[in-house]
Amino acid sequence: MKKLEEKIIKEGSVLSDSVLKVDSFLNHQVDPFLMKEIGEEFSRLFADRGITKIVTLESSGIAPAVMAALTMDVPLVFARKRKSLTLTEGLLTADVYSFTKEETNTITISEKYIKKTDNVLIIDDFLANGQAAEGLINIVSQTGASIAGIGIVIEKAFQDGGKLLREKGFKVESLARLQSLSGGKVEFAEEALT
Amino acid sequence: MKKLEEKIIKEGSVLSDSVLKVDSFLNHQVDPFLMKEIGEEFSRLFADRGITKIVTLESSGIAPAVMAALTMDVPLVFARKRKSLTLTEGLLTADVYSFTKEETNTITISEKYIKKTDNVLIIDDFLANGQAAEGLINIVSQTGASIAGIGIVIEKAFQDGGKLLREKGFKVESLARLQSLSGGKVEFAEEALT
Repeated sequence: MKKLEEKIIKEGSVLSDSVLKVDSFLNHQVDPFLMKEIGEEFSRLFADRGITKIVTLESSGIAPAVMAALTMDVPLVFARKRKSLTLTEGLLTADVYSFTKEETNTITISEKYIKKTDNVLIIDDFLANGQAAEGLINIVSQTGASIAGIGIVIEKAFQDGGKLLREKGFKVESLARLQSLSGGKVEFAEEALT
Repeated sequence: MKKLEEKIIKEGSVLSDSVLKVDSFLNHQVDPFLMKEIGEEFSRLFADRGITKIVTLESSGIAPAVMAALTMDVPLVFARKRKSLTLTEGLLTADVYSFTKEETNTITISEKYIKKTDNVLIIDDFLANGQAAEGLINIVSQTGASIAGIGIVIEKAFQDGGKLLREKGFKVESLARLQSLSGGKVEFAEEALT
Protein backbone atom coordinates (compact mmCIF):
# COMPACT_ATOMS: atom_id res chain seq x y z
CA MET A 1 0.00 0.00 0.00
CA LYS A 2 1.80 3.00 -1.40
CA LYS A 3 0.49 5.60 1.02
CA LEU A 4 1.46 3.47 4.02
CA GLU A 5 4.97 2.93 2.65
CA GLU A 6 5.35 6.66 2.11
CA LYS A 7 4.20 7.35 5.66
CA ILE A 8 6.70 4.80 7.01
CA ILE A 9 9.54 6.43 5.03
CA LYS A 10 8.53 9.91 6.11
CA GLU A 11 7.69 9.32 9.77
CA GLY A 12 9.00 5.91 10.79
CA SER A 13 12.06 5.77 13.01
CA VAL A 14 14.45 2.80 12.82
CA LEU A 15 15.54 2.04 16.39
CA SER A 16 17.60 -1.07 15.56
CA ASP A 17 17.98 -3.69 12.83
CA SER A 18 14.69 -5.19 13.96
CA VAL A 19 12.64 -2.36 15.49
CA LEU A 20 10.69 0.25 13.52
CA LYS A 21 8.91 2.88 15.56
CA VAL A 22 5.71 4.18 13.97
CA ASP A 23 4.22 5.91 16.95
CA SER A 24 3.38 9.07 15.01
CA PHE A 25 0.56 7.42 13.08
CA LEU A 26 -0.16 3.88 14.35
CA ASN A 27 1.07 2.88 17.83
CA HIS A 28 0.54 5.98 19.94
CA GLN A 29 -0.61 8.91 17.83
CA VAL A 30 -3.07 7.60 15.24
CA ASP A 31 -3.82 9.03 11.79
CA PRO A 32 -7.56 8.35 11.42
CA PHE A 33 -7.61 8.88 7.63
CA LEU A 34 -4.78 6.43 7.11
CA MET A 35 -6.60 3.96 9.36
CA LYS A 36 -9.72 4.37 7.21
CA GLU A 37 -7.75 3.66 4.04
CA ILE A 38 -6.08 0.67 5.71
CA GLY A 39 -9.52 -0.65 6.67
CA GLU A 40 -10.74 -0.23 3.10
CA GLU A 41 -7.66 -2.00 1.75
CA PHE A 42 -8.20 -4.99 4.06
CA SER A 43 -11.82 -5.02 2.96
CA ARG A 44 -10.75 -5.15 -0.69
CA LEU A 45 -8.11 -7.85 -0.12
CA PHE A 46 -10.50 -10.16 1.74
CA ALA A 47 -13.68 -9.26 -0.18
CA ASP A 48 -14.22 -12.81 -1.49
CA ARG A 49 -13.72 -14.53 1.85
CA GLY A 50 -17.15 -14.18 3.43
CA ILE A 51 -15.79 -12.60 6.62
CA THR A 52 -18.30 -12.49 9.49
CA LYS A 53 -16.08 -11.15 12.28
CA ILE A 54 -12.79 -9.35 12.80
CA VAL A 55 -10.53 -10.22 15.72
CA THR A 56 -7.55 -8.16 16.85
CA LEU A 57 -5.39 -7.70 19.92
CA GLU A 58 -5.45 -4.59 22.11
CA SER A 59 -4.29 -1.86 21.77
CA SER A 60 -2.59 -0.94 18.51
CA GLY A 61 -4.70 -3.31 16.41
CA ILE A 62 -7.96 -1.64 17.38
CA ALA A 63 -7.84 1.50 15.20
CA PRO A 64 -7.14 -0.25 11.87
CA ALA A 65 -9.42 -3.16 12.81
CA VAL A 66 -12.44 -1.01 13.68
CA MET A 67 -12.11 0.77 10.33
CA ALA A 68 -11.98 -2.58 8.53
CA ALA A 69 -15.00 -3.73 10.55
CA LEU A 70 -16.90 -0.60 9.51
CA THR A 71 -16.09 -1.08 5.82
CA MET A 72 -16.84 -4.81 5.89
CA ASP A 73 -20.02 -4.39 7.99
CA VAL A 74 -19.06 -6.95 10.64
CA PRO A 75 -18.38 -6.72 14.39
CA LEU A 76 -14.89 -6.44 15.83
CA VAL A 77 -13.68 -8.32 18.87
CA PHE A 78 -10.47 -7.25 20.52
CA ALA A 79 -8.60 -9.81 22.60
CA ARG A 80 -7.40 -8.50 25.93
CA LYS A 81 -3.89 -8.77 27.27
CA ARG A 82 -5.03 -8.36 30.84
CA LYS A 83 -7.93 -9.75 32.73
CA SER A 84 -10.91 -7.53 33.39
CA LEU A 85 -13.02 -7.67 36.53
CA THR A 86 -16.17 -7.56 34.43
CA LEU A 87 -15.05 -10.25 31.98
CA THR A 88 -14.66 -13.34 34.07
CA GLU A 89 -16.73 -16.21 32.74
CA GLY A 90 -16.34 -18.27 29.61
CA LEU A 91 -12.91 -16.95 28.75
CA LEU A 92 -10.76 -18.54 26.09
CA THR A 93 -7.05 -17.95 26.59
CA ALA A 94 -3.74 -18.34 24.80
CA ASP A 95 -0.20 -17.43 25.82
CA VAL A 96 1.67 -14.96 23.63
CA TYR A 97 5.35 -14.21 24.08
CA SER A 98 6.42 -10.71 23.07
CA PHE A 99 10.04 -10.51 21.94
CA THR A 100 9.79 -6.70 22.02
CA LYS A 101 8.53 -6.55 25.58
CA GLU A 102 10.29 -9.73 26.72
CA GLU A 103 7.24 -11.05 28.50
CA THR A 104 4.43 -13.54 28.12
CA ASN A 105 0.87 -12.26 28.10
CA THR A 106 -2.15 -14.45 28.48
CA ILE A 107 -4.58 -13.07 25.94
CA THR A 108 -8.29 -13.64 26.43
CA ILE A 109 -11.49 -13.58 24.43
CA SER A 110 -14.98 -14.26 25.71
CA GLU A 111 -16.37 -17.37 24.04
CA LYS A 112 -19.69 -15.55 23.72
CA TYR A 113 -18.48 -13.40 20.87
CA ILE A 114 -17.10 -15.98 18.45
CA LYS A 115 -19.40 -18.69 17.12
CA LYS A 116 -18.24 -21.83 15.39
CA THR A 117 -20.04 -20.65 12.28
CA ASP A 118 -17.93 -17.47 12.20
CA ASN A 119 -15.42 -16.84 9.47
CA VAL A 120 -12.79 -14.72 11.15
CA LEU A 121 -10.36 -12.17 9.76
CA ILE A 122 -7.47 -11.58 12.16
CA ILE A 123 -5.95 -8.09 11.99
CA ASP A 124 -2.83 -6.87 13.74
CA ASP A 125 -0.50 -3.90 13.49
CA PHE A 126 2.78 -5.80 13.20
CA LEU A 127 3.85 -9.30 12.16
CA ALA A 128 7.37 -10.33 13.17
CA ASN A 129 7.83 -13.75 14.74
CA GLY A 130 4.13 -14.40 14.48
CA GLN A 131 3.57 -14.95 18.19
CA ALA A 132 0.57 -12.64 18.45
CA ALA A 133 -1.03 -14.00 15.26
CA GLU A 134 -0.47 -17.60 16.42
CA GLY A 135 -2.08 -16.73 19.76
CA LEU A 136 -5.11 -15.23 18.03
CA ILE A 137 -5.37 -18.24 15.68
CA ASN A 138 -5.17 -20.55 18.70
CA ILE A 139 -7.89 -18.72 20.60
CA VAL A 140 -10.23 -18.41 17.59
CA SER A 141 -9.71 -22.08 16.72
CA GLN A 142 -10.82 -23.11 20.22
CA THR A 143 -14.30 -21.88 19.30
CA GLY A 144 -14.44 -24.02 16.17
CA ALA A 145 -14.65 -20.91 13.95
CA SER A 146 -12.79 -20.72 10.65
CA ILE A 147 -9.83 -18.42 10.04
CA ALA A 148 -10.51 -16.68 6.73
CA GLY A 149 -7.24 -14.80 6.69
CA ILE A 150 -4.76 -12.59 8.45
CA GLY A 151 -4.41 -8.89 7.67
CA ILE A 152 -1.25 -7.16 8.85
CA VAL A 153 -0.43 -3.48 8.66
CA ILE A 154 3.38 -3.86 8.71
CA GLU A 155 5.18 -7.18 8.24
CA LYS A 156 8.83 -7.60 9.13
CA ALA A 157 9.55 -9.90 6.20
CA PHE A 158 13.08 -10.49 7.52
CA GLN A 159 11.58 -12.38 10.45
CA ASP A 160 9.85 -15.68 9.94
CA GLY A 161 6.29 -15.19 11.21
CA GLY A 162 4.80 -14.49 7.78
CA LYS A 163 6.62 -17.42 6.17
CA LEU A 164 5.44 -19.83 8.86
CA LEU A 165 1.83 -18.68 8.65
CA ARG A 166 1.79 -18.90 4.83
CA GLU A 167 3.36 -22.39 4.96
CA LYS A 168 0.49 -23.42 7.20
CA GLY A 169 -1.87 -22.34 4.43
CA PHE A 170 -3.17 -19.08 5.86
CA LYS A 171 -3.91 -16.20 3.52
CA VAL A 172 -1.72 -13.45 4.95
CA GLU A 173 -1.98 -9.96 3.47
CA SER A 174 0.47 -7.35 4.69
CA LEU A 175 0.01 -3.76 3.58
CA ALA A 176 3.72 -2.97 3.95
CA ARG A 177 6.49 -5.59 3.99
CA LEU A 178 9.85 -4.59 5.41
CA GLN A 179 12.76 -6.37 3.75
CA SER A 180 15.38 -4.82 6.00
CA LEU A 181 15.98 -2.16 8.63
CA SER A 182 19.79 -2.50 8.46
CA GLY A 183 21.90 0.59 8.85
CA GLY A 184 18.93 2.62 10.00
CA LYS A 185 17.33 2.43 6.56
CA VAL A 186 13.88 1.08 5.69
CA GLU A 187 13.82 -1.22 2.65
CA PHE A 188 10.56 -2.71 1.46
CA ALA A 189 10.19 -6.17 -0.06
CA GLU A 190 9.69 -5.94 -3.81
CA GLU A 191 6.09 -7.06 -3.82
CA ALA A 192 3.41 -8.30 -1.49
CA LEU A 193 2.97 -12.05 -1.05
CA THR A 194 -0.33 -13.79 -0.51
CA MET B 1 -27.95 9.66 22.50
CA LYS B 2 -31.05 7.59 21.89
CA LYS B 3 -29.44 4.78 19.93
CA LEU B 4 -26.77 4.28 22.59
CA GLU B 5 -29.39 4.18 25.36
CA GLU B 6 -31.36 1.59 23.41
CA LYS B 7 -28.25 -0.50 22.93
CA ILE B 8 -27.48 -0.31 26.65
CA ILE B 9 -31.03 -1.43 27.52
CA LYS B 10 -30.95 -4.23 24.97
CA GLU B 11 -27.43 -5.58 25.49
CA GLY B 12 -26.00 -4.14 28.70
CA SER B 13 -25.71 -6.39 31.70
CA VAL B 14 -25.93 -4.99 35.24
CA LEU B 15 -23.37 -6.84 37.35
CA SER B 16 -23.91 -4.85 40.54
CA ASP B 17 -25.28 -1.50 41.72
CA SER B 18 -22.23 0.17 40.23
CA VAL B 19 -21.06 -2.03 37.35
CA LEU B 20 -22.61 -2.13 33.89
CA LYS B 21 -21.08 -4.56 31.44
CA VAL B 22 -21.26 -3.44 27.82
CA ASP B 23 -18.81 -5.86 26.33
CA SER B 24 -21.09 -6.80 23.43
CA PHE B 25 -20.61 -3.43 21.69
CA LEU B 26 -17.97 -1.30 23.42
CA ASN B 27 -15.46 -2.98 25.74
CA HIS B 28 -14.69 -6.28 24.06
CA GLN B 29 -16.85 -6.81 21.02
CA VAL B 30 -17.20 -3.47 19.21
CA ASP B 31 -20.09 -2.30 17.02
CA PRO B 32 -18.30 -0.22 14.37
CA PHE B 33 -21.47 1.57 13.16
CA LEU B 34 -22.37 2.64 16.68
CA MET B 35 -18.77 3.84 17.15
CA LYS B 36 -19.10 5.90 13.97
CA GLU B 37 -22.31 7.49 15.21
CA ILE B 38 -20.72 8.15 18.60
CA GLY B 39 -17.79 9.82 16.85
CA GLU B 40 -20.18 11.98 14.84
CA GLU B 41 -22.10 12.94 17.97
CA PHE B 42 -18.93 14.03 19.77
CA SER B 43 -17.99 16.01 16.67
CA ARG B 44 -21.36 17.77 16.75
CA LEU B 45 -21.22 18.47 20.50
CA PHE B 46 -17.75 20.01 20.36
CA ALA B 47 -18.02 21.59 16.90
CA ASP B 48 -17.49 25.15 18.18
CA ARG B 49 -14.46 24.33 20.33
CA GLY B 50 -11.66 24.43 17.77
CA ILE B 51 -10.39 20.96 18.68
CA THR B 52 -6.93 20.16 17.28
CA LYS B 53 -6.31 16.78 18.91
CA ILE B 54 -8.17 13.96 20.61
CA VAL B 55 -6.64 12.11 23.56
CA THR B 56 -7.97 8.85 24.99
CA LEU B 57 -6.77 5.96 27.12
CA GLU B 58 -6.15 2.46 25.82
CA SER B 59 -7.98 0.21 25.12
CA SER B 60 -11.73 0.77 25.19
CA GLY B 61 -11.48 4.48 24.39
CA ILE B 62 -9.73 3.89 21.08
CA ALA B 63 -12.66 2.78 18.90
CA PRO B 64 -15.00 5.71 19.70
CA ALA B 65 -12.07 8.17 19.75
CA VAL B 66 -10.69 7.18 16.34
CA MET B 67 -14.16 7.65 14.82
CA ALA B 68 -14.41 11.10 16.43
CA ALA B 69 -10.91 11.91 15.14
CA LEU B 70 -11.95 10.88 11.64
CA THR B 71 -15.08 13.03 11.71
CA MET B 72 -13.29 16.02 13.25
CA ASP B 73 -10.25 15.67 10.98
CA VAL B 74 -7.68 15.70 13.80
CA PRO B 75 -5.12 13.17 15.05
CA LEU B 76 -5.81 10.86 17.98
CA VAL B 77 -3.29 10.08 20.71
CA PHE B 78 -3.96 7.16 23.01
CA ALA B 79 -2.30 7.19 26.42
CA ARG B 80 -0.74 3.90 27.38
CA LYS B 81 -1.30 2.05 30.62
CA ARG B 82 1.94 0.15 30.31
CA LYS B 83 5.39 1.16 29.22
CA SER B 84 6.56 0.24 25.77
CA LEU B 85 10.14 -0.68 24.89
CA THR B 86 10.00 1.59 21.86
CA LEU B 87 8.47 4.54 23.73
CA THR B 88 11.09 5.50 26.25
CA GLU B 89 12.09 9.15 25.95
CA GLY B 90 10.15 12.29 26.69
CA LEU B 91 7.29 10.55 28.47
CA LEU B 92 4.71 12.44 30.46
CA THR B 93 3.07 10.37 33.18
CA ALA B 94 0.17 10.45 35.62
CA ASP B 95 -1.09 7.91 38.13
CA VAL B 96 -4.63 6.62 37.70
CA TYR B 97 -6.36 4.49 40.30
CA SER B 98 -8.96 2.11 38.93
CA PHE B 99 -11.72 1.26 41.42
CA THR B 100 -12.92 -1.48 39.08
CA LYS B 101 -9.54 -3.17 38.79
CA GLU B 102 -8.35 -2.13 42.25
CA GLU B 103 -4.95 -1.06 41.01
CA THR B 104 -2.97 2.05 40.12
CA ASN B 105 -1.70 2.41 36.57
CA THR B 106 0.87 4.91 35.50
CA ILE B 107 -0.46 6.23 32.21
CA THR B 108 1.98 7.72 29.72
CA ILE B 109 1.94 9.99 26.69
CA SER B 110 4.91 11.04 24.60
CA GLU B 111 5.42 14.79 24.91
CA LYS B 112 6.14 14.84 21.17
CA TYR B 113 2.48 14.43 20.26
CA ILE B 114 0.85 17.21 22.26
CA LYS B 115 1.91 20.80 21.68
CA LYS B 116 1.11 23.66 23.99
CA THR B 117 -0.88 25.23 21.16
CA ASP B 118 -3.14 22.16 21.03
CA ASN B 119 -6.76 22.33 22.01
CA VAL B 120 -7.51 18.84 23.28
CA LEU B 121 -10.74 16.87 23.44
CA ILE B 122 -10.47 14.01 25.93
CA ILE B 123 -12.62 10.98 25.11
CA ASP B 124 -13.21 7.94 27.29
CA ASP B 125 -15.63 5.04 27.38
CA PHE B 126 -16.78 5.41 31.01
CA LEU B 127 -16.84 8.19 33.60
CA ALA B 128 -17.40 7.08 37.19
CA ASN B 129 -15.14 8.55 39.87
CA GLY B 130 -13.29 10.55 37.25
CA GLN B 131 -9.89 9.05 37.95
CA ALA B 132 -9.05 8.29 34.33
CA ALA B 133 -10.29 11.68 33.11
CA GLU B 134 -8.33 13.47 35.86
CA GLY B 135 -5.21 11.53 34.86
CA LEU B 136 -5.66 12.51 31.22
CA ILE B 137 -6.28 16.15 32.18
CA ASN B 138 -3.15 16.07 34.34
CA ILE B 139 -0.98 14.63 31.59
CA VAL B 140 -2.32 16.97 28.88
CA SER B 141 -1.93 19.98 31.17
CA GLN B 142 1.76 19.15 31.68
CA THR B 143 2.31 20.06 28.01
CA GLY B 144 0.68 23.47 28.41
CA ALA B 145 -2.10 22.50 25.97
CA SER B 146 -5.72 23.56 26.59
CA ILE B 147 -8.49 21.12 27.49
CA ALA B 148 -11.40 21.97 25.19
CA GLY B 149 -13.72 19.41 26.70
CA ILE B 150 -14.35 15.87 27.81
CA GLY B 151 -16.48 13.45 25.79
CA ILE B 152 -17.75 10.37 27.59
CA VAL B 153 -19.66 7.46 26.10
CA ILE B 154 -21.33 6.31 29.35
CA GLU B 155 -21.38 8.37 32.56
CA LYS B 156 -22.31 6.83 35.88
CA ALA B 157 -24.13 9.93 37.08
CA PHE B 158 -24.62 8.32 40.51
CA GLN B 159 -20.87 8.59 41.07
CA ASP B 160 -19.21 11.95 41.46
CA GLY B 161 -16.64 12.17 38.64
CA GLY B 162 -18.88 14.15 36.30
CA LYS B 163 -19.98 16.56 39.03
CA LEU B 164 -16.39 17.26 40.09
CA LEU B 165 -15.21 17.84 36.52
CA ARG B 166 -18.13 20.19 35.75
CA GLU B 167 -17.52 22.10 39.00
CA LYS B 168 -13.95 22.66 37.83
CA GLY B 169 -15.38 24.30 34.72
CA PHE B 170 -14.80 21.55 32.17
CA LYS B 171 -17.35 21.03 29.43
CA VAL B 172 -18.30 17.39 29.91
CA GLU B 173 -20.62 15.77 27.38
CA SER B 174 -21.81 12.23 28.11
CA LEU B 175 -23.77 10.39 25.45
CA ALA B 176 -25.59 8.24 28.02
CA ARG B 177 -25.96 9.12 31.71
CA LEU B 178 -26.85 6.35 34.12
CA GLN B 179 -28.94 7.54 37.07
CA SER B 180 -29.00 4.16 38.77
CA LEU B 181 -28.20 0.49 38.32
CA SER B 182 -30.05 -0.55 41.48
CA GLY B 183 -31.91 -3.82 41.48
CA GLY B 184 -30.29 -4.89 38.24
CA LYS B 185 -32.18 -2.20 36.31
CA VAL B 186 -30.69 0.54 34.14
CA GLU B 187 -32.21 3.99 34.71
CA PHE B 188 -31.01 6.95 32.73
CA ALA B 189 -30.77 10.51 34.04
CA GLU B 190 -33.59 12.65 32.68
CA GLU B 191 -31.44 14.81 30.47
CA ALA B 192 -27.80 15.35 29.59
CA LEU B 193 -25.85 18.03 31.47
CA THR B 194 -23.14 20.20 30.01
